[in-house]
Amino acid sequence: MEYLEQSFSVKFDYKVFFTTSLFKPDNFTLANFILSVPAKIRRKILFVVDEGVAIAHPDLKASIKEYFKVYQEIQLVEDILIIPGGEAAKNNPELFEKLIAAVDTYGIDRHSYIAAIGGGAVLDLVGYAAAVSHRGVKHIRIPTTVLSQNDSGVGVKNGINFKGKKNFTGTFSPPAAVFNDAEFLLSLTDRDYYAGISEAVKVALIKDEAFFEWLEAHASSLAERNSKQMNVLIKRCAALHLAHISSADPFEMGSSRPLDFGHWAAHKIEQLSHFSILHGEAVAMGIALDSTYSYLIGLITEEKLQRILNVLQVFFELTHPLIQIQDLNAPVLKGLAEFQEHLGGELTITLLSDIGKGQEVHQIDSDLLIAASNYVMEFTRQPQSLSL
Amino acid sequence: MEYLEQSFSVKFDYKVFFTTSLFKPDNFTLANFILSVPAKIRRKILFVVDEGVAIAHPDLKASIKEYFKVYQEIQLVEDILIIPGGEAAKNNPELFEKLIAAVDTYGIDRHSYIAAIGGGAVLDLVGYAAAVSHRGVKHIRIPTTVLSQNDSGVGVKNGINFKGKKNFTGTFSPPAAVFNDAEFLLSLTDRDYYAGISEAVKVALIKDEAFFEWLEAHASSLAERNSKQMNVLIKRCAALHLAHISSADPFEMGSSRPLDFGHWAAHKIEQLSHFSILHGEAVAMGIALDSTYSYLIGLITEEKLQRILNVLQVFFELTHPLIQIQDLNAPVLKGLAEFQEHLGGELTITLLSDIGKGQEVHQIDSDLLIAASNYVMEFTRQPQSLSL
Repeated sequence: MEYLEQSFSVKFDYKVFFTTSLFKPDNFTLANFILSVPAKIRRKILFVVDEGVAIAHPDLKASIKEYFKVYQEIQLVEDILIIPGGEAAKNNPELFEKLIAAVDTYGIDRHSYIAAIGGGAVLDLVGYAAAVSHRGVKHIRIPTTVLSQNDSGVGVKNGINFKGKKNFTGTFSPPAAVFNDAEFLLSLTDRDYYAGISEAVKVALIKDEAFFEWLEAHASSLAERNSKQMNVLIKRCAALHLAHISSADPFEMGSSRPLDFGHWAAHKIEQLSHFSILHGEAVAMGIALDSTYSYLIGLITEEKLQRILNVLQVFFELTHPLIQIQDLNAPVLKGLAEFQEHLGGELTITLLSDIGKGQEVHQIDSDLLIAASNYVMEFTRQPQSLSL
Repeated sequence: MEYLEQSFSVKFDYKVFFTTSLFKPDNFTLANFILSVPAKIRRKILFVVDEGVAIAHPDLKASIKEYFKVYQEIQLVEDILIIPGGEAAKNNPELFEKLIAAVDTYGIDRHSYIAAIGGGAVLDLVGYAAAVSHRGVKHIRIPTTVLSQNDSGVGVKNGINFKGKKNFTGTFSPPAAVFNDAEFLLSLTDRDYYAGISEAVKVALIKDEAFFEWLEAHASSLAERNSKQMNVLIKRCAALHLAHISSADPFEMGSSRPLDFGHWAAHKIEQLSHFSILHGEAVAMGIALDSTYSYLIGLITEEKLQRILNVLQVFFELTHPLIQIQDLNAPVLKGLAEFQEHLGGELTITLLSDIGKGQEVHQIDSDLLIAASNYVMEFTRQPQSLSL
C-alpha cells in the first residue's frame, strides 16, 4: 500500500485579562494587547455588541469611540454593530450571515480583529462568524456575564444552533484574547448573575474539592452579590477551565468530555423549554440529577450529595416539570442519545466518585434516573437546610 | 495587569493513499483505514459524490454499495448524495445547508465519516460542511481530478464562496485521510486533465528545480496522457505540497503564502470569467504573468523565463482578454488588493528568484505588470518553440 504521511502540530496561545472599566481611556489593557502584536499596517477592529448590554450601558458605544481616539494607531470601524443576545441569537441564521456580510463590507482581513461584547450566546455566534471568515479572522472576546467570564468565554469553542439543536455547527477556534471586565457584572439581573455560578459548582465538583468547600463557605455572600468574592470565583473557575483544556484534548478528538458533567440533561431541557430556562439554570438541574444518580449507584455518600444539593439550592430551583422523569417516555431522556451523537462514539457520561473527582461511565440506567429525579423532587420539598 | 495564560499544541496527522479501483471488493485500502481507528461502536460513513463523476462513472453508486457489503463492520449510509460539481457548487449556499441537514438526518456524529468523491470544488464544499458539523466530523477526501489529487485535495483547507468572492468562508481542517485513485483520471476531458498540471509547474518553480526539469522532459508524454508519468507527477506534487504545509505555517497565521505563486491574478480572472476559466487554467496564466514580472525586475534571466513559458504553452493558453493589462484600470489589477485582504497584513506576493526558488516581495509596480502582460501576449503570438 503506497501512501504519503502528513504530520504537524499547531501551537495556540492566548491570555485572559482581568480588568475593570476596559474602555476608560487610561486603561491600557486592550490597546496594549492589540499594539503588542507586530503588524506592518494599521490594525483594524470591528465591535459587535449584545443588544442587552448596549441597553444596560447606554454610553458604551460612545466610550468605545472615545477610547480609540486615544489609540489612533488602531483603526476602529466606525459602525458598531448591535445584535440581539441570548440563546435566540444562535437560532437565527440571518444574524450569522449579517456578520459574514460585515466582514466583507468593512474589509476585515485575517489580521484584523472582530471584538464581541456580550453574553455567551453572542460570543458563540460572533466567534463562529470570525472563525470561518477568510478561514479565521482574529477574535477578541469581552464576556459580560458571570457564565461567559468564568466558562464559555475563556474556552475554545463557538457555534450556533440548527433546527433548535444546540451548537450543531461551530468550530474549535481559540480567541486572540479575552477581556473580563468586572464592571459589566454590576448591571446583570439576579437571575443572570446566579446562572453563572452553576458552572463554578460543576468544575469544583469534578476537579477541585477545596474550591467546592470555598463555594460552600461563601455561598451566602455570593448570593448577596459580593463583588470581591465573585471575582475570586470567576478567576478560579476560569483557571480550572483553561487548565482542563490545555491538559486534555483541546479540540475534543476523543469521546470524553468531563466538563460536560450535568450537561446531557441540561442541553435537552434548555431546548424543551425553548430556551426560557437559562443554560446555567439547566446545568444546576443537570448537576442535581447526575449527583443524585452518582449517590444511587454508590459512588458518593448521601451526606456529600446533600452538601451539593444545599449549595445549588442557594442559587437555583433544582427541579422543573421538564426534568422530572416519571417514566421511560420522559422527553428529557432523549438528551442521552443526542449527547452521544454530538460527541460520537460510545456514550460517555461524567458522574462523581467524590466531591472534587469526576468519573466516567458508559451506561446509564433509566430506572435509576427515575429514582434520582424523584429524590431531587423530594429533597426540594423539604425546608432548606440550615447548614449554610 | 492581571491575566491567565493559555497555551497548548494540537497534533494533526493523516495519510494520502495512492491506489487504483478503490471500490473493488478486494481493495482493502479504504476499509482497512476505517477499521484501523479504534472505535467501540459501528462506524458510519456517508458518501457525497460530484454529479460529473457520477455521470462519468454510472456504476459508482452500485460499486460503493457492493464494497460495503463485504465490509459489514462499517455502516454505509444507504443514501448516496449526488451534488453538482465545479466552482458553481461553491457559490450556492443551499448546497452547504443541504449537507448540514444531511448530517442531522443521517445521525452523523463526530466519529462518523463523510467521504467526498469529486473535484476540488466538491471537496472544498463537503470538507467545510464536515468541519463545522458538530464542530468537526471526520472527513475523507477522494479527489477525482489531477488538480485535486496533486494539490487542493491533499491540503488542509476548505471553503465556499460568498458573493462570488473565492473561499470567503471556510476553515483549516486536516482531512482524516485522502485516497487518490488513478482510475478516476481516465474519464477526465483533456481540458480538466491538463488544468491540474499548472499547480505542478507552480510548485516545481518555487521549490524544486529537478522537478521542473522532469516536467520539461516529460511534457510531451504528459500531453499524450501517459498514465505512468501522470502518477509520478501527482505523487511528487502532492509530496511537495504536504511538505510545505508541515514545514511552515499550516493554518496560515502569518501573511506569507508562497504556494499562492501566480494566484493573485488567477483568483481574480476566475471570478471575472464567472468561473468559465478553470482554476488550473487561470493559475497557468497567473504563473506566466508573475514569471515575466520576475524577469522584468531582474530576478530571473530571459532564457529561464522562456523555458517556463514553453512548458506552460504545451498545456495552456497563456493569455486571455481578462488578464491583459493595458492600463491601470484593468479589472484584474483589483486582484492584488483582494489577495492582500484575504490574507491580511502587508501585501505579500511570491515571485521567482530562480527556477526552483520563490521570493517574496511586498510591492508590485502596475506599470511593470502592463509590460509583463504585453510580453506574454507577444510571446504567445510567436510560433511555439521547438525545444520541447
